[in-house]
Amino acid sequence: MNPEEIQELRRRYLGPSLSLSYREPLTIVRGQGAYLYDHQDRAYLDCVNNVAHVGHCHPRVIAAGYRQMELLNTNTRYLHPNVVRYAELLLERLPDPLEVCYFVNSGSEANELAWRMARAVTGGTGAVVLDVAYHGNTNTCIDLSPYKFNGPGGSGRPDHVRVVDLPYPYRGRYREDVPELGRRYADQLPMALTELEDSGHRPAAFFAESLPSCGGQIVLPEGFLVAAYGHVHAAGGVAVADEVQVGFGRVGTHFWGFETQGVVPDIVTLGKPIGNGHPLGAVITTRAVAEAFANGMEYFNTFGGNPVSCAIGLAVLEVVEEEGLQANALRVGERLKAGLTALMDRHPAIGEVRGRGLFLGIEFVADRGRRDPDARTAAGVVERMKERGFLLSTDGADHNVIKIKPPLVITDGDGDRLVEALDEELERLD
Amino acid sequence: MNPEEIQELRRRYLGPSLSLSYREPLTIVRGQGAYLYDHQDRAYLDCVNNVAHVGHCHPRVIAAGYRQMELLNTNTRYLHPNVVRYAELLLERLPDPLEVCYFVNSGSEANELAWRMARAVTGGTGAVVLDVAYHGNTNTCIDLSPYKFNGPGGSGRPDHVRVVDLPYPYRGRYREDVPELGRRYADQLPMALTELEDSGHRPAAFFAESLPSCGGQIVLPEGFLVAAYGHVHAAGGVAVADEVQVGFGRVGTHFWGFETQGVVPDIVTLGKPIGNGHPLGAVITTRAVAEAFANGMEYFNTFGGNPVSCAIGLAVLEVVEEEGLQANALRVGERLKAGLTALMDRHPAIGEVRGRGLFLGIEFVADRGRRDPDARTAAGVVERMKERGFLLSTDGADHNVIKIKPPLVITDGDGDRLVEALDEELERLD
Repeated sequence: MNPEEIQELRRRYLGPSLSLSYREPLTIVRGQGAYLYDHQDRAYLDCVNNVAHVGHCHPRVIAAGYRQMELLNTNTRYLHPNVVRYAELLLERLPDPLEVCYFVNSGSEANELAWRMARAVTGGTGAVVLDVAYHGNTNTCIDLSPYKFNGPGGSGRPDHVRVVDLPYPYRGRYREDVPELGRRYADQLPMALTELEDSGHRPAAFFAESLPSCGGQIVLPEGFLVAAYGHVHAAGGVAVADEVQVGFGRVGTHFWGFETQGVVPDIVTLGKPIGNGHPLGAVITTRAVAEAFANGMEYFNTFGGNPVSCAIGLAVLEVVEEEGLQANALRVGERLKAGLTALMDRHPAIGEVRGRGLFLGIEFVADRGRRDPDARTAAGVVERMKERGFLLSTDGADHNVIKIKPPLVITDGDGDRLVEALDEELERLD
Repeated sequence: MNPEEIQELRRRYLGPSLSLSYREPLTIVRGQGAYLYDHQDRAYLDCVNNVAHVGHCHPRVIAAGYRQMELLNTNTRYLHPNVVRYAELLLERLPDPLEVCYFVNSGSEANELAWRMARAVTGGTGAVVLDVAYHGNTNTCIDLSPYKFNGPGGSGRPDHVRVVDLPYPYRGRYREDVPELGRRYADQLPMALTELEDSGHRPAAFFAESLPSCGGQIVLPEGFLVAAYGHVHAAGGVAVADEVQVGFGRVGTHFWGFETQGVVPDIVTLGKPIGNGHPLGAVITTRAVAEAFANGMEYFNTFGGNPVSCAIGLAVLEVVEEEGLQANALRVGERLKAGLTALMDRHPAIGEVRGRGLFLGIEFVADRGRRDPDARTAAGVVERMKERGFLLSTDGADHNVIKIKPPLVITDGDGDRLVEALDEELERLD
C-alpha cells in the first residue's frame, strides 16, 4: 500500500477527529533504537516519542512479550507470578509510603482510576488543576484538562474544577525575577480550593504533571509542589502526580519528576513509556488510600495486570536499569541542552531553552524583550527539520515551543547532529 | 513462586479492591485453546473467558503480534497500513451506515468515547441505561452502570442517568406470558427520557448491551431494541450498542448481538474478545456521527490503532472467519444448551436455561413456581465444578445465574463433558 492509498483509506474508514503529523505526512514502517524509517527506508531521528522509552523495537522487550504470549495471557482473577514481580520491581523505585499498585491499559485509564480513588477516599467531588494541563482523552480526564476543555471544540471549565495559573517562569504571571516563585504560584490554590467549597464541591484532588508537558515543556519553579500539596492536604484533598509523560528516568537526575520538587504525592499515575508502546498504565498509592478506596466497590480491569503486559513492563524496567538509561538521559540531555542554549547567541528567535534530562523545550519568540510567542517559526522549523530527518513537534498554549523528548537511548552524536541541523535551519530562516 | 507466596505478595503490593476467583484460588500458568493449566499442570476447561475468543495462545495471533513488534510499534500520527487494513476488515462485518472506526485499548475506553461522541453530537447530557448494566470501570462508565453505582460501595444513581427495567422474561416485571414483551419493556423509555429533560439533562444516549451479561446472561425479548431505539431517537438521543462481551460471532446466528434484534445502532462499542487478550477496543459509528463529533476537539489515543494492536486484531478477525468460529459457536452452543436444558428434568434447582450460541446462562431457583433466586446453589456448583476441572462463574442481580461464555473453539466433546459433570454435581447436591 502506498502513502496515497493509506491516506485515502484513512479518510474513508477512520474518524476525522484524528490528525496526522506534518503537512506531508510520513509513512513509517520500521523502528530501531531512537530511529524510525519510512517506506523508502529513509531514517529519522525520533526526538518526540516518549513512548518508545528504551528505544523502538527493543529486542529484550519483544522477547519478553513473545515468550509470555506463547504461555498464557489471562486476567488477574487467578494467581500468576508476573503481576506481583512487576509490582515489586516498580515499588522498589518509589519512595515510602507509596506501596500499592493497580494496573491499567493507558495513562487515561490511570488518571480515571486516580480520580475514582480521590473521590472515594475524600468524599469530595472537586478538583484543582494547572492551566493548559492535559490528563487524558476520557470524559473525566477531559474535565481535568484545560488543554481540552478550553481548546477547540471544548465546552469550557466544568463546575467541579478550578484552574490555577501554570507556573511558567518565562511567560507566566510571575516571572523568573520574582522571589519565592514556586510559593507565589501556589498561593493561588487556597482561593481555588475555597471556591470549590463555595460551589458545593468539597476538594477531592489536586492533579498536576510533575513537569507540565502540553503546557510547553515546563520546569516547575522550586517549592511549587511542596506548597501546592500542602494547600490541598489542608483542604482535605489528595495530591495526584501525573508522571505519564515525565516519569521513568527521563528527567535524568531523578527517576520521577515529583522527586525534583522534593515531594511525595498520595497517588502517582503512569502510562506511555512503561510498556514501551504496549498498552500499559499503572496507579500507585499509599496503603491508607488503597484501604479507604476498598469501600466495597471492586476495581477490576479486564486486561490490567495480565501476564503479557506485566512481562513487557518488567522487561522495560529492567532495561532502563541495566542499560543505565536514566544516567544517559542526564548526560545526553545536559549536553543537548547546552548545545541548544548556545544557539541562542546566533538565533534571536529562541527565547528560552529549558528542561531537565531528555525533557527539553525550545521556546520561540518574535521579540526577546516582549517575549511574544512565535508559533510560525516553531512550526516552520519542525517542518524543515523533518525534511532533514529529525522528528520534532510543538506544544504550549501558544504552540511556540518545540518539544524534545526522545527515546532514552539517544546518543551524544544524535544530539550533536540535532543541534547542528537546527543551527543551519535557523540560519536559513533568519 | 508457589501459590502462597504469590498470594502473600498480592496482599502486600496490589490494591485490596481486586478479588480472586474461587475460595481456594487457582494458579494458572499456561493456556491452550479452551483450556487453562495450573502450576501442577492440571487442565481446566475454561467456560467463562470471553476474552480468549479464538482460544488461549492462538499461534497465528501470537505470530502476528510478534512479527509486528519486531518491525514497529508507534502511534497513528504517521501513516501505516495496519490500521486501515484492520478498519476495513472490521467494517466489512458491520451493516450500513456503520462505517467509521476509532481504536482504543479497552471496552471501558470504548464506552468512554461513545459517551463523548453522544454528548458532542446531540448536545445532550442525559443517558438511559438498563438495570444491572455494566459498561466499564472508569468514572463515566460507572455512572452508566447500575451494577456498580447501586452495588457495594456505589453512591447511587447520578442525576444525569435514568434506569429502566432489565427486560428479563424469566423474573422481571413482565414475564414470558405477556404479549409483545419487548415493546412492553421499551414502554418505560419515554418516561425515563422525559424525566431526564425535567432534570435539565437533554437525552444524549441510550446505552445497552445487545444481550445483557452482568444482568444474568439475558436474551432481550423480541422487539425490545427496535422500540427502545425508536424512543431514544424520537427524543434526540443516539443508540449505543455495547458489544464488548457479546459481539464477534459469539451468539452464533449472527456476528453481532444487535443483529438478533433487527436493529442498527448509531454507535457500537467493542472490547474484550477483539484482541484475544491484547488490550484492544474499538468504537464504530456512522459518517454522520463521526462528522458531528469532529467539532474541533481532537480524539487521539496514544496506543489506540498502533501497528501491533492492529496486527493482532486483524489476526483474530481472520481466525474467527477462517476457522468458522461463529458457526462453531452456533453448533456447539445449541447442543450444549439442549444438554443443559435436559438437566432440568432431573434437577429442580435449575429454573431456566437460556442464551444464544456460546452465550448461555443457567438460572438457579429455590422454587420453580415462585422463581426465588438460589445464589447458594449456584456458588456451590461453581466451586465443585472447579474441583472437577471446569471454570464457571455466577452473575445476575441475585448472583444465581451460572454464566457460560467460553472461547469459541470449544468442541462438542467439551460441552458434553460439561453437561455430564454438572449432572453429577447437581445429583450430589439434591
